[in-house]
Amino acid sequence: MSAAVNFKKCGSVLVTGASRGLGLQIVESLASGGFSPGKIIATVRQPASAQKLQELAEKHPNIHIITLDVVNQESIDKSAEEVARLVQEEGLNCLINNAGINVVADFNTVTAEKMIENFHTNAVAPLMITKAFLPLLKQAASRGGAGGSGSMSIQRAAVINMTSLLGSVELAWGERANNFKWYPYRTSKSALNMVSRCMAVDLEPDGILCMAIHPGWVRTDMGGSQAPLSPKESVSAMLSVIAALTEKDHGSFLNFTGEALPW
Amino acid sequence: MSAAVNFKKCGSVLVTGASRGLGLQIVESLASGGFSPGKIIATVRQPASAQKLQELAEKHPNIHIITLDVVNQESIDKSAEEVARLVQEEGLNCLINNAGINVVADFNTVTAEKMIENFHTNAVAPLMITKAFLPLLKQAASRGGAGGSGSMSIQRAAVINMTSLLGSVELAWGERANNFKWYPYRTSKSALNMVSRCMAVDLEPDGILCMAIHPGWVRTDMGGSQAPLSPKESVSAMLSVIAALTEKDHGSFLNFTGEALPW
Repeated sequence: MSAAVNFKKCGSVLVTGASRGLGLQIVESLASGGFSPGKIIATVRQPASAQKLQELAEKHPNIHIITLDVVNQESIDKSAEEVARLVQEEGLNCLINNAGINVVADFNTVTAEKMIENFHTNAVAPLMITKAFLPLLKQAASRGGAGGSGSMSIQRAAVINMTSLLGSVELAWGERANNFKWYPYRTSKSALNMVSRCMAVDLEPDGILCMAIHPGWVRTDMGGSQAPLSPKESVSAMLSVIAALTEKDHGSFLNFTGEALPW
Repeated sequence: MSAAVNFKKCGSVLVTGASRGLGLQIVESLASGGFSPGKIIATVRQPASAQKLQELAEKHPNIHIITLDVVNQESIDKSAEEVARLVQEEGLNCLINNAGINVVADFNTVTAEKMIENFHTNAVAPLMITKAFLPLLKQAASRGGAGGSGSMSIQRAAVINMTSLLGSVELAWGERANNFKWYPYRTSKSALNMVSRCMAVDLEPDGILCMAIHPGWVRTDMGGSQAPLSPKESVSAMLSVIAALTEKDHGSFLNFTGEALPW
């Protein structure tokens, strides 16, 4: 059975930051693949200006667009209520915390404000969103997943955190560190890795899988035009990894190719 | 030669958060040891209420108390000006970023505000303080250290970041993770580890050593009464490690006993 089939057996997937870049590509790849999940919930800050996502949703009736500003608690709570009405007793199977920003600043230009802005969006928001959606994830997990197996998987309930290799403290050394001297981004992603790891510990008793994945260096607005991967290549590889996740991947930090990365 | 002798050859050491806990103990151990550095600069938010530090300073004329609120940029800049007047052309040899807080919150009680407060004090402040003191560290480094050897050490110039084992993402698993479910503190310390590592890369061309150290679990207001180590025991061990730092420790994360810890 191909890993992608698992998304077909996945009742609902929510993707934050779906107006462009990797988030938009995840929605498109999930919707247009042969193994589309029941409901693809795409959250964006401003649906009215998310033109490409709107066009996708017109073609694919299983795409549902929801308003969510990830750094606004009221907006988080409101989106959770909307999603609850949408998924009803089935709960939410897979939450992909994808929304992220890169507040570029090196040692000379970094300020406390830049550090905090990036930390809030990239590390705090995934935590607060997961808290808000926990009842829906628990509801899905309690149904036991496909075949009621009770084992961990995206068919049951999972939280996927879009992190970065640049969040690896071990790898922040040598040539790689010299090329990407981004204090706000790097610290936000190492903090996200800690959030992901702590949440894995806390969500385990409910049977909810939690892990962090690095998308590779991708040609998005954030990655720039020199990146080696197209969004489609990155997302295709990531979705294969995510679809095949099991207990052994719980609490892990994986590359888009599936290999474990050092913290 | 005992490692402690190196502090005697160290013209100046600055310790943030010196009103109590480990910071106060570092000042006391440095001042009362047989190998006291030329100037011990102790920073506190409110000197008037730092009773014990004031008493120490009365006994030891090489202790200089400076006002510093680590989350206030104006206060940081002002303290750097005061220290510049104090150390003059000798510069600052050793900056110990010790000030830290623990905003206790688990998955259920954590809020965005708690995450940001802890991140600001524990991860952002050491970065902004190091930036502000960089001219003084560079000045000390340019003098080449004891004997003008030009090798990295606290006698030349060093930034020591007081971190925690709880900031290790790798170790945030199993029993240890279950006992200390502190999201704000853990994320702030993993972010500090990233800051420390990035600063090591950026400070290396100037010959400034940078590393992060875990003090152990200590009986302070933060560590609680059940901790196995007294502040004196922890600080004695840490000062031996810090005094003996060389190039090979640059960019490292060490336990108070001197062993490397996983990120």
